[in-house]
Amino acid sequence: MKTVGYAAYSQGSDLKPYAFERRELRENDVAIEILYCGVCHSDLHSVRNDWGGSTYPLVPGHEIIGRVTAVGSDVSRYQVGDTVGVGCMVDSCQHCDQCEAGEEQFCREGMTPTYSGQDRHTHEPTQGGYSRHVVVREEFVLSIPKSLDLSRVAPLLCAGITTYSPLKAWDVKPGTRVAVLGLGGLGHMAVKLAVAMGAVVTVVGRTDSKLEDAKALGAQHYLISSDEAAMAQAQSSFDLIIDTIPVKHDVTGYVPLMDVNGTLVIVGQVGLLEEPSTVPMIFGRRRIAGSLIGGIPETQEMLDFCGEHNVLPECEMIRMDEINDAYERMERSDVRYRFVIDMASMPESA
Amino acid sequence: MKTVGYAAYSQGSDLKPYAFERRELRENDVAIEILYCGVCHSDLHSVRNDWGGSTYPLVPGHEIIGRVTAVGSDVSRYQVGDTVGVGCMVDSCQHCDQCEAGEEQFCREGMTPTYSGQDRHTHEPTQGGYSRHVVVREEFVLSIPKSLDLSRVAPLLCAGITTYSPLKAWDVKPGTRVAVLGLGGLGHMAVKLAVAMGAVVTVVGRTDSKLEDAKALGAQHYLISSDEAAMAQAQSSFDLIIDTIPVKHDVTGYVPLMDVNGTLVIVGQVGLLEEPSTVPMIFGRRRIAGSLIGGIPETQEMLDFCGEHNVLPECEMIRMDEINDAYERMERSDVRYRFVIDMASMPESA
Repeated sequence: MKTVGYAAYSQGSDLKPYAFERRELRENDVAIEILYCGVCHSDLHSVRNDWGGSTYPLVPGHEIIGRVTAVGSDVSRYQVGDTVGVGCMVDSCQHCDQCEAGEEQFCREGMTPTYSGQDRHTHEPTQGGYSRHVVVREEFVLSIPKSLDLSRVAPLLCAGITTYSPLKAWDVKPGTRVAVLGLGGLGHMAVKLAVAMGAVVTVVGRTDSKLEDAKALGAQHYLISSDEAAMAQAQSSFDLIIDTIPVKHDVTGYVPLMDVNGTLVIVGQVGLLEEPSTVPMIFGRRRIAGSLIGGIPETQEMLDFCGEHNVLPECEMIRMDEINDAYERMERSDVRYRFVIDMASMPESA
Repeated sequence: MKTVGYAAYSQGSDLKPYAFERRELRENDVAIEILYCGVCHSDLHSVRNDWGGSTYPLVPGHEIIGRVTAVGSDVSRYQVGDTVGVGCMVDSCQHCDQCEAGEEQFCREGMTPTYSGQDRHTHEPTQGGYSRHVVVREEFVLSIPKSLDLSRVAPLLCAGITTYSPLKAWDVKPGTRVAVLGLGGLGHMAVKLAVAMGAVVTVVGRTDSKLEDAKALGAQHYLISSDEAAMAQAQSSFDLIIDTIPVKHDVTGYVPLMDVNGTLVIVGQVGLLEEPSTVPMIFGRRRIAGSLIGGIPETQEMLDFCGEHNVLPECEMIRMDEINDAYERMERSDVRYRFVIDMASMPESA
């Protein structure tokens, strides 16, 4: 199938229209016409090859919402016309213990990322959601609750599941004391989801600049990390910290904010942390952990949860040809809180 | 009560005889004649004030074995002649949630350390087990199983509980895959205890120099961390790592050795770690944690467990006047695996 997308043609280059082929449907494939695609900071990292392994031309985008246009002969879960989503993965081995446990993100053979990966059969590069169409095997297609405003659902597929999964893995429920570090695309979803789960949520910011936003998102408390007295007062007061800070930072000052056995989960920074002190970890059996998106069953659970509680990200809709400006704005944190590309703005051809 | 000990009279000085007073018995106190005292690396850190807060003269020692010589009027659990132990704590508030949960080491008001602390009533400095006698409130006195060789029990009170507690907190049971980093006082106890719990135990060393020792201690496997192929082969193969490395180090290379959801527990280094990468934490939901000794009920449980399984540290008995040489040897890791002071060698007076 011929389609068109927006691609980086080389490392760090601006995105431009790109005509390419999507594979013909296999028996278990679903063909999707993309309606919306979220803009994740990972997209920009991949365009720049910050994490290595990027191949070009590279069509980013792993927060995909669309409508089914065709299904393979063995597809049973979806039919033409269904509203569906695709997140960060489009395939995995489907038979290892992790896949069988619904944790495809930890597939023993390595999951296939939505873009900048390799198709497991043809070894052709996978290309993401900044495009008119995508073809994905049934098992990696998500069902979108009808109650949700479709134009705002896309960021749930990455920012949503990335924050939902640790909230569930660390058993957040009514009354759990959750702190969120960083109030960007991930952080604002962490706040909304934790609030919807009944948690008592505190946003921790360096200044009071995000206080009003935090309250508007539902956070009950706001802690200013540069206020030493407030930080001392807040020691041992959280069960869980979701750390969405997307750059190298020092977690040592945040660890004592957790109660005994508390965990600080890193979902933002992929790379080095500054040298941490073990002291607040030892004196409180506190933990630092990482978390990666979530498995397909949990992603569906998250979407259903958001449908039930009407949890949606705050989005700014952009046209496809505004993507390069959007990247610049994202870099200076000038977005509240997630860009979503309206795919109706995609040119008909490259 | 007049007694005599060995004290550092100033920061980093050699230990010398020191005559001092133990308090008269309160209603809930137990007076103990000390038979043996283990030599912990913390003792040397405290003598040198490496962690701050040391006060002098300082009598170290928090691995204490002795016999009860007198009890206060309200003491019900112990009587004269009982063989007892005292570990790293001699008091706590006894009414906070942590104390009530038997986690006195995390007492909200701060536990009272066995030495270099302050008595909660008189605010006099606490002094440790390098002495003929000690007076401790009943709640912090442990009962020693009769089956154990008394001359080797002392190190269980710190090295034993420090490694037993994380093994229990992270639910080690038959078949659990445990790796131990560092094979010193703590590490060799971690191996023995994990083996006794039925775990499959791997010692990780930089060279093969400790291979024979590891096997003799009961470890089934030995992994050489400088062997890149072996390390790659061992990825995702442990459920828990007990990290006893007592100096600043980089955990990043060890984290991928753990399976999904694995935890590396730091019990050795109290201070900074080198900059860790979040990548292996994120790609596997892996965790880094700290752990501090254990509570009094758990310490008793550990002693009973060691009694049942005849788990004892490897000890080298020294005389009290050999302590300064022992510190020098401990510094260059020239001890397999714990010095124990035979308190019969303590002079009658300073």
